[in-house]
Amino acid sequence: MDIRSKIRLFVDSPLGEGQSILLARDQANYLFNVMRLNIGDFISVFNGKDGEWQAEVLQANKRKGIIIVKNQSMPQLLPPDVWLLFAPIKKTRTDFIVEKATEMGVSRICPVFTDYTNSDRIKQSRLQAHSIEAAEQCGGTYVPPVDELSTLTSVLKSWPKERHLLFCDEHKVGENVKSMKATKSDKWAILIGPEGGFSDSEVMHLKSLEFVTSISLGPRILRADTAAVAALAIWQMQMGDWK
Amino acid sequence: MDIRSKIRLFVDSPLGEGQSILLARDQANYLFNVMRLNIGDFISVFNGKDGEWQAEVLQANKRKGIIIVKNQSMPQLLPPDVWLLFAPIKKTRTDFIVEKATEMGVSRICPVFTDYTNSDRIKQSRLQAHSIEAAEQCGGTYVPPVDELSTLTSVLKSWPKERHLLFCDEHKVGENVKSMKATKSDKWAILIGPEGGFSDSEVMHLKSLEFVTSISLGPRILRADTAAVAALAIWQMQMGDWK
Repeated sequence: MDIRSKIRLFVDSPLGEGQSILLARDQANYLFNVMRLNIGDFISVFNGKDGEWQAEVLQANKRKGIIIVKNQSMPQLLPPDVWLLFAPIKKTRTDFIVEKATEMGVSRICPVFTDYTNSDRIKQSRLQAHSIEAAEQCGGTYVPPVDELSTLTSVLKSWPKERHLLFCDEHKVGENVKSMKATKSDKWAILIGPEGGFSDSEVMHLKSLEFVTSISLGPRILRADTAAVAALAIWQMQMGDWK
Repeated sequence: MDIRSKIRLFVDSPLGEGQSILLARDQANYLFNVMRLNIGDFISVFNGKDGEWQAEVLQANKRKGIIIVKNQSMPQLLPPDVWLLFAPIKKTRTDFIVEKATEMGVSRICPVFTDYTNSDRIKQSRLQAHSIEAAEQCGGTYVPPVDELSTLTSVLKSWPKERHLLFCDEHKVGENVKSMKATKSDKWAILIGPEGGFSDSEVMHLKSLEFVTSISLGPRILRADTAAVAALAIWQMQMGDWK
């Protein structure tokens, strides 16, 4: 069978031919109640590491169900090794950033607390669930892990020096792509500030670090969620898997 | 005075030194009730064509107010001549596309009805209001006009041939930036499909047109709102005002 079901489900189980999987209650509800699938129907499943597989419904009721894995329909596709560091903003827009980062293809999502960050907590499990949903939706086979919130200071203190950090600076003009392309690195991260931008001392500190390059995202001031997508698009096109 | 007030208001009046402006009721409510401004305070105003000006509050009450325009704080900045054509999707995400297009800097926003478009109407005035709000927020001085909904077929039929159309094709791989840069044109448009993509006959028709170039936005399938920002970021960085 080389038909891929458009219904895609993330499952937290190993995937291989003949493997049977007991569905979680919310998954069973979605498949059999919302989508009205029946025994014998196929869905696509992925677990973030074994690619995408087609699986057949073996048992179906509204609260539970069993599927059996048949054949692989897509190999595992890892995104390029780029992290997104962002300062949490309002709830909906934070959810959007996680969704967009997953669609755009990042390897890790790191919420950081900066001088002008308003929101001092996140719910990691909720953001991780958003990332899973976005992966189901966008046809990807990888789910970026979402870290717990850390301060930017502590993240920079323990930074792995071989990873290059692109910092989106509202005041910078020009020379973007050139300075990005001139940097020889295969590990990257992109840092997006909160709505109020970065403090002067944060900007000074960032600019003093050897592993940091600053780029501009044009003459208008972008919201944090717009900036995340824009910066990732430019990076993917120049350095990542859109080349 | 070279201090710019962070409170920015779009006004539908000519702007010049000494000009007095009667505020609309919702503007007065916002300034004097929500933001608690008083007589003698300054705000930034723009009308989409005369740049940004500082204006002083002359009369203030919750239902009306008068401001007087003092000095220009920013010249008019026009975005590059790029239109965004998109198929309306769910309400919130359509609002987002208009907001993002304004922040990213487009000259015109054109909702188009395609074969797989679900939503068969838009409220032009609501979308235009979103675009104004985004311009107030992003520090821009230009508000892209939002067209009424047209069918893609009719838009393509009366297309101005000197304007180049970038079509974001989910199935295309590689050669993006090269083919974009090879196109000599200073008038552009970017076309984003609805969640279900374009129909086969739409793709065939688009590919047969001389003024169309297709580009890929990577191996994952992007939601329409993500695709709009991503395509505009790449275009702005290569051809627009982010260079």
